Amino acid sequence: MIKIKILSIGKTKEAWLEEAIAEYEKRLKGKVFFEFVWLKTDDQLLAAAEKENFVIGLDPQGKMFSSDAFAEFFHEQVIFAGSKISFVIGGATGLPQKFKTNIPLISLSLMTFTHQMTRLLLVEQIYRATEILKGSNYHK
Amino acid sequence: MIKIKILSIGKTKEAWLEEAIAEYEKRLKGKVFFEFVWLKTDDQLLAAAEKENFVIGLDPQGKMFSSDAFAEFFHEQVIFAGSKISFVIGGATGLPQKFKTNIPLISLSLMTFTHQMTRLLLVEQIYRATEILKGSNYHK
Repeated sequence: MIKIKILSIGKTKEAWLEEAIAEYEKRLKGKVFFEFVWLKTDDQLLAAAEKENFVIGLDPQGKMFSSDAFAEFFHEQVIFAGSKISFVIGGATGLPQKFKTNIPLISLSLMTFTHQMTRLLLVEQIYRATEILKGSNYHK
Repeated sequence: MIKIKILSIGKTKEAWLEEAIAEYEKRLKGKVFFEFVWLKTDDQLLAAAEKENFVIGLDPQGKMFSSDAFAEFFHEQVIFAGSKISFVIGGATGLPQKFKTNIPLISLSLMTFTHQMTRLLLVEQIYRATEILKGSNYHK
């Protein structure tokens, strides 16, 4: 079982988003377990992230991947981190410089998405990665 | 009033997606009107797209933009096209080569998203573009 913790600021108010994420959680049941942690400020986000064992940052300066390349990256990180990975979603201005020098950084797009959509896209790309790795037709 | 037509394959089944898109439609009421056209096959998609006055393709080979640059691009295209723009969302393999040589192509990400999420992201980026252009704080 892979354990993914996603740390971000704010709290979702949109029911549609919870529904969308719940759909992927269901599909990944028994394989990937998601935990969502909500922080109120950048400082709290960093304090929480620093306690995590293995952290990947989502930041505008991060590396962009195709979904195939992300699947490979994700697989490597899962092995490296012993199946426990935390993702930290930075705000519109990204994560603080001092924090992000020591962790792998990824970026979903040159575009800025809302925190909420970023969370959904990340969950969907993790689902997509598991489908790519098992060779299903989901991603085609 | 800007009229945006979005042509894609399939038909959404997800209630959450309709809810999310409806939220942006509401925010853009009186400013941007969206029409969604669903086609069954690639051939039908192309036939429909060819009838449109001004078409922008979403394709993996498309140009990627930051949200700020997209706002500028969108604004230029709206002026150029007389406020009527159609977006065509290609499948996972993109749009057919012969079609896409004559139209502007954009790409939201190196990653592949579902048709549905692409549609939502496009609507959200158009909303974001209007907010960027009017100098609001939405995108910050």
